[in-house]
Amino acid sequence: MQNHTQHTIVALATAAGVGAIAVIRLSGIDAIHIANKIFTSKNLENLPSHTLHFGTIKDGDLLIDEVLLALFIAPQSYTKENVVEISCHGSPYIIESIIKLCIKNGAQAAKPGEFTLRAFLNGSLDLSQAEAVADLIASGSKSSHQLALQQMRGGFSSELKNLREQLVYFASMIELELDFGEEDVEFANRAQLKKLILNISKVISRLIQSFEMGNVIKNGVPVAIVGKPNVGKSTLLNALLNEERAIVSEIAGTTRDTIEDEITLGGIRFRFIDTAGIRQTTDVIEAKGVERTFEKIKQASIVLYLLDPRETSEAELTQIVNDLQNSNSNNSKLLLIINKADDENVTTVSHTFTNASNFIYISARELINIAVLEQALIKAANINAINTDEVIVSNIRHLEALQKTETALNNVLYGIDNPITSDFLVTDIKQALYFIGEITGEITTDDLLETIFSKFCIGK
Amino acid sequence: MQNHTQHTIVALATAAGVGAIAVIRLSGIDAIHIANKIFTSKNLENLPSHTLHFGTIKDGDLLIDEVLLALFIAPQSYTKENVVEISCHGSPYIIESIIKLCIKNGAQAAKPGEFTLRAFLNGSLDLSQAEAVADLIASGSKSSHQLALQQMRGGFSSELKNLREQLVYFASMIELELDFGEEDVEFANRAQLKKLILNISKVISRLIQSFEMGNVIKNGVPVAIVGKPNVGKSTLLNALLNEERAIVSEIAGTTRDTIEDEITLGGIRFRFIDTAGIRQTTDVIEAKGVERTFEKIKQASIVLYLLDPRETSEAELTQIVNDLQNSNSNNSKLLLIINKADDENVTTVSHTFTNASNFIYISARELINIAVLEQALIKAANINAINTDEVIVSNIRHLEALQKTETALNNVLYGIDNPITSDFLVTDIKQALYFIGEITGEITTDDLLETIFSKFCIGK
Repeated sequence: MQNHTQHTIVALATAAGVGAIAVIRLSGIDAIHIANKIFTSKNLENLPSHTLHFGTIKDGDLLIDEVLLALFIAPQSYTKENVVEISCHGSPYIIESIIKLCIKNGAQAAKPGEFTLRAFLNGSLDLSQAEAVADLIASGSKSSHQLALQQMRGGFSSELKNLREQLVYFASMIELELDFGEEDVEFANRAQLKKLILNISKVISRLIQSFEMGNVIKNGVPVAIVGKPNVGKSTLLNALLNEERAIVSEIAGTTRDTIEDEITLGGIRFRFIDTAGIRQTTDVIEAKGVERTFEKIKQASIVLYLLDPRETSEAELTQIVNDLQNSNSNNSKLLLIINKADDENVTTVSHTFTNASNFIYISARELINIAVLEQALIKAANINAINTDEVIVSNIRHLEALQKTETALNNVLYGIDNPITSDFLVTDIKQALYFIGEITGEITTDDLLETIFSKFCIGK
Repeated sequence: MQNHTQHTIVALATAAGVGAIAVIRLSGIDAIHIANKIFTSKNLENLPSHTLHFGTIKDGDLLIDEVLLALFIAPQSYTKENVVEISCHGSPYIIESIIKLCIKNGAQAAKPGEFTLRAFLNGSLDLSQAEAVADLIASGSKSSHQLALQQMRGGFSSELKNLREQLVYFASMIELELDFGEEDVEFANRAQLKKLILNISKVISRLIQSFEMGNVIKNGVPVAIVGKPNVGKSTLLNALLNEERAIVSEIAGTTRDTIEDEITLGGIRFRFIDTAGIRQTTDVIEAKGVERTFEKIKQASIVLYLLDPRETSEAELTQIVNDLQNSNSNNSKLLLIINKADDENVTTVSHTFTNASNFIYISARELINIAVLEQALIKAANINAINTDEVIVSNIRHLEALQKTETALNNVLYGIDNPITSDFLVTDIKQALYFIGEITGEITTDDLLETIFSKFCIGK
């Protein structure tokens, strides 16, 4: 990977498309030299870092644009290399012209994530922090944003670094014992080592457990809307989604790409599953419908069970609740919702339900009590505001490495409690170190880096 | 309009959507003050202009992002006001959060074009230059880009300014005569005035005439593809368009929104008209087809007449060429194209045409000689590289003002040659001055500014 840093790379750093301005980023040893060849208004060599310069970009005699140039002198930049950011007018034609001009003058088109890869290779960020940059850009809710930000700022890394340093110490002590071979010395106190391994295991185990929440925060809380045909599932879904759309388009010019069938409430992303089924106007036949309902419930963290009280007897309801709870192997939360609250008969009918206070009365069509339902969703999601002290794992690569670390640590514990030679013990500790190192990038391969950074957007 | 500059405005300046980074722009008297309230890493007051500062943006205790802040101290900025540009991570969620935070701290969401409006009101740009900013962003070809750039840099304005100053001088001289009322003095030499007016008229007339080219450069050269059913019109159109698409997508990440049925060749935009008709698989019946053909030719600057030589006799061809030339009221250029050059019979057949050297032999299907056709298109467009000394008008508002100026100047000339009192002469000169002033913005109304800037994108 080292040859990556031999050339200077260029790419559009802002979103593609027409805007007032666009920013093109150059990074590498020749960044200032290349910029100097196309920027005709002043000599850029030997200017101080973190300064801005107004002037023109020309291709020979042909004027391309009036631009603002931002200079970052190595190592005071994102990549720790020389970086020039060119703010030009946000015309795709101009952007293309300037990038081509940079390439003509010696730059290479950057690969996806190549700027962040360089930041990692040059020690600006560790690997888990670099991965968090992509998560941060992709995050669409307050909680996923906070999670990515915490990871990018190194919360996760510092927790792992601390554990790793302690393990390294013990590994070196045991290796020292090996040097003394026959002499049966014990530099590494086995009781202390065991205590440390148990401590580390506890932390790793907590991190592994945090993935469930981390995953939900990152990818959204899966919610299923179930109920009989024509009870108003589709209307309810649209009521929830439309409100989101209205909020999102509030600030002109920042139109967020709203993902079909997702909403953000109280900073938490909710993902409605199997909405295609709901959107079909002709409902599946009842038998298949029930089967499908149970399938959905299995995937969901929250189930919205929509009822029409005029068509549901108390006995029927008890049956439904029991059935749902029995089928509910992953403990998804059940919210019972009485739709058609705009119908004057409903209140009367619902009084016949014993447990009426546990129901949420809404009208999906008349948008009555949708806010109450939203509050119930937020409560059911049970995601606390991200505590900046508590590290939450949200990356499946990190989860897998942590699980491998856990296995290695269990082997170490077994080794301490059983008559196993020090060299096997060292091997197991080194295994644990290896997997922890994979997370932060002390241990990497070109393949791993390729896999991680190819998922980035170009220009980052 | 003056109250516009009393408050500080904020908007996303880069294209909407996900990118590596995004730039949010604040402009106004409180720009630095507002930035200072949300940027927690250092005090921004009293820092030098054109400097960059790395740090965090927080909403109270809640971290929003790590950003780079660019400071521009009035009047050293685009708007001549204090300007802060915040480079944040390019996540729509973060962009929205930061804009909301700025608004919470006293900024107002910018209206479309409001930054450029302020640049105009504060004297950074005149009106025609401000309009060119929008044209520059929208320009998608080398020639339209050069045209907009020239106008933005004031080529048009300085030409008009010179004329206007001379007219102002004469108007004031004639007004002086009016002050002396009865005394029959003549401060403004009528022969000199006439010479000046004739000079100015010549320039205005040249500018009016330049609009035809300006319009073609800005909106594309209209090209019609005509010919009998099944001669290969649709295949030719696709051959030309597909090549364009391939070129455009060459640089990853800069995907230009290619407009359906437009191509850029040699820096010139060509716009194919009535392609819907061509794309229809079932051709219209012949009688209606001919009528339609003549309609298309009227709108086109260039007509590509596609022939299948095996189905066209020389007599027929002569007839076609005559018909086309007779119907061709606006002198569009005619390119006769022999399709199916991949067919071995074609060369033989075409030799029977008297004027064979004037034909372009292509195969739309086999992509033979498409480059030759493209060169012929460029030549037929007859647009020279934009001469930076020669001003070309491309804005219909400017055209209209120039036409009104011309009328007023003709009235002045009539007044000089006829026994008309000086006060009428002054009125006509002032009319001419008024219309020239409308172009550069010495004369504006709120309505005019509203109309112009509402077409801008937000953030510009």
